[in-house]
Amino acid sequence: MSLEQVLVNIKQAAVRLAAAETEVKNRALQRIADRLLEAEEAIIRANEADLRRSREENLAAPLLKRLKFDAAKLAEVVSGIKSLIGLEDPVGKTLLATELDAGLELYRVTCPIGVIGVIFESRPDALVQIATLCLKSGNCVLLKGGSEARETNRLLSEIIISAAVEAGIPENWAYLLESREEVGAMLKLDNYIDLIIPRGSNEFVRYIMEHSNIPVLGHADGICHCYLDASCDTEMAVKIVVDAKTQYVAVCNATETLLVHEAAAPRVLPTLYRELTAKNVELVGCPRTRAIIPVAAASEEDWQTEYLDYKLAIKVVSTLEEAIDHINTYGSGHTDSIVTADKENAARFLDYVDSGNVFWNCSTRFSDGFRYGFGAEVGISTNKIHSRGPVGLDGLVIYKYKLVGGGHIVADYAGGGRSFTHKKLTKAFDIG
Amino acid sequence: MSLEQVLVNIKQAAVRLAAAETEVKNRALQRIADRLLEAEEAIIRANEADLRRSREENLAAPLLKRLKFDAAKLAEVVSGIKSLIGLEDPVGKTLLATELDAGLELYRVTCPIGVIGVIFESRPDALVQIATLCLKSGNCVLLKGGSEARETNRLLSEIIISAAVEAGIPENWAYLLESREEVGAMLKLDNYIDLIIPRGSNEFVRYIMEHSNIPVLGHADGICHCYLDASCDTEMAVKIVVDAKTQYVAVCNATETLLVHEAAAPRVLPTLYRELTAKNVELVGCPRTRAIIPVAAASEEDWQTEYLDYKLAIKVVSTLEEAIDHINTYGSGHTDSIVTADKENAARFLDYVDSGNVFWNCSTRFSDGFRYGFGAEVGISTNKIHSRGPVGLDGLVIYKYKLVGGGHIVADYAGGGRSFTHKKLTKAFDIG
Repeated sequence: MSLEQVLVNIKQAAVRLAAAETEVKNRALQRIADRLLEAEEAIIRANEADLRRSREENLAAPLLKRLKFDAAKLAEVVSGIKSLIGLEDPVGKTLLATELDAGLELYRVTCPIGVIGVIFESRPDALVQIATLCLKSGNCVLLKGGSEARETNRLLSEIIISAAVEAGIPENWAYLLESREEVGAMLKLDNYIDLIIPRGSNEFVRYIMEHSNIPVLGHADGICHCYLDASCDTEMAVKIVVDAKTQYVAVCNATETLLVHEAAAPRVLPTLYRELTAKNVELVGCPRTRAIIPVAAASEEDWQTEYLDYKLAIKVVSTLEEAIDHINTYGSGHTDSIVTADKENAARFLDYVDSGNVFWNCSTRFSDGFRYGFGAEVGISTNKIHSRGPVGLDGLVIYKYKLVGGGHIVADYAGGGRSFTHKKLTKAFDIG
Repeated sequence: MSLEQVLVNIKQAAVRLAAAETEVKNRALQRIADRLLEAEEAIIRANEADLRRSREENLAAPLLKRLKFDAAKLAEVVSGIKSLIGLEDPVGKTLLATELDAGLELYRVTCPIGVIGVIFESRPDALVQIATLCLKSGNCVLLKGGSEARETNRLLSEIIISAAVEAGIPENWAYLLESREEVGAMLKLDNYIDLIIPRGSNEFVRYIMEHSNIPVLGHADGICHCYLDASCDTEMAVKIVVDAKTQYVAVCNATETLLVHEAAAPRVLPTLYRELTAKNVELVGCPRTRAIIPVAAASEEDWQTEYLDYKLAIKVVSTLEEAIDHINTYGSGHTDSIVTADKENAARFLDYVDSGNVFWNCSTRFSDGFRYGFGAEVGISTNKIHSRGPVGLDGLVIYKYKLVGGGHIVADYAGGGRSFTHKKLTKAFDIG
């Protein structure tokens, strides 16, 4: 079967899945959890085959760690599915209800987007999370995981797809892509796919964005900043920067650039220097930074680099405005935090920094769907439209306008005979 | 000044306009209304120059009519601005508030998208509507109107831009593009422009979609359907179809294809034939239609054509499902209406038809920002993400996450010492 034929089938399934009742979707999620647990042994076996092959292919140790899917990981994803069952269905919510005229009522009601293509990295748990988030939000999904995880992904997707169908979800609601060629073909099938969510390296995400007319939701870079304002508490500032830089360096919400107000720099930089070098963080700085602490010189390129490593670029700024300008110029619109005791400066930072996540007195590392209480996320978006920040269930729906009349025609209003009432209604859409 | 330099300035203005207070934006709108009225004579003179030149260039009569901007049109746009002042500010609304832990609060707060490029047709009133909608929603805007209206557009934009600046809106908040070359250049400047809204012919909108990496909001086709179900009331069905087809044929929400259930066809088609031919509507139909009324044969192409004219394609279907399938296959996701006395069939149609606007017992012509009570619209979107249907103020904003802590770091949660409360808050974001 060609990929286009696969997509014709998926698109048909999407119309039916969009109308699936919450109860059916939750039953399917429960069934998926049960079937995954039943298949524990087979899943671990498949994963061991992936691990063995990847070791032979000399996959780097951190990637091997991410690839591993054992009993503990399985228990984790099953617990994730159970909390997803408990979350409110994002579909069918009335966002707006207006009486246009007597007997003519307009409703804005949430509905799934349709068919979503998700391309993700080597972690097999990502497959389970993404597929179940799409299912709960009523979206059909094309899944493409890392080829290192091919055996694990194949088994997981077989179980997930068939378990959902057994519970009453339309056939063809999900499909696993297994080759790069299929991804290339997918990018061109904009008649069938409504949204692509790529996760992975900057280059990869940029490639997807440039090679498809399908809307893309996600982020390429995560160049996050901490800004220490003149009035910041030294202890708090150091604690936050150390966490934001070192708690987990390989992730998009780790801080890459530190901005420090000139009035705070002599006070906080020496302590930060001690703490960060003790954790083996390589520091580079602007000339004003280097006048205070002995670090190498930062180049223009440093402000534009997502290190994803134990490295931090430091710049001393003269004003809050300079910090905001720097972030809006070099940042990637992901997550930026101000540490300050000054409420007005905090408010100004949160208003003027043009990023999806703007923080006051806390670590950039909080920018995450689980920590935000969304259950899970399909990714973090730096887009300026649709969804920004961690994208959970809410971010996977759109709406349609439902208008219910009793034979109403526009000519009656154009002629001046009738006029619109535009009265706000407080009821939810319900056809009765 | 190069277009790129113009855009550098606009992007800087966008950060400040995003934080503009409602009062300042409303004062600017009032000032725009006042200044437009003061300049009435000069505006009409500029428009007369456009009309004269366009007549010499043999512009078609309907286009000349759209180009005309007289005292009545001016009064209309000024009244539109006044109602816009009365509408709630879409920026700064708290959509979600969650306590992540004691003293760590997350807010999802609406904010402007940033810089929007709008390309519109020959009506100069569109310029006023679009510019003021963008201003109220805190967005900077690049405007490109039809070249027929160049004198009128130049004067209107000068007045609007300067009046807003006088009232305290940041300079460079809007800019009028005057050449096709500038539009071409704009499509490539995806670092500066967050969204493009093209209005115009199908070919034009498709061209824009294919030639830019900037997200595009809008619609190419408006292939709208009326479906007359088995149980439809004959009188209501005829009234709605006549309105949907003939009340104004040249617009995107006019009906282009009529679907009729086989049980209703013998009853409604003869009356429809009389009424529509009396209004000079050319009819084409499927074989089953032609067995009932004497019309020409419809081809496969007819189901895919937006006539924008006194022409209607008719198809008899055996089931509601066949009608839904036809709409989801040939429709453009714009507006589709069912006429039926059967609540269950209506609910099914509204759920299963994958269009931005799905109607029951009313004319497709209601699909419009003004009729929906949005004040005005920048366009009608058939996108599956961000905004669907008529796009008013609400559709021009996105959100950012604001997280307020007291020195919170992720390491405290990763280590198991602290855990998230994820308690729903009912307050709006307010830094105090």
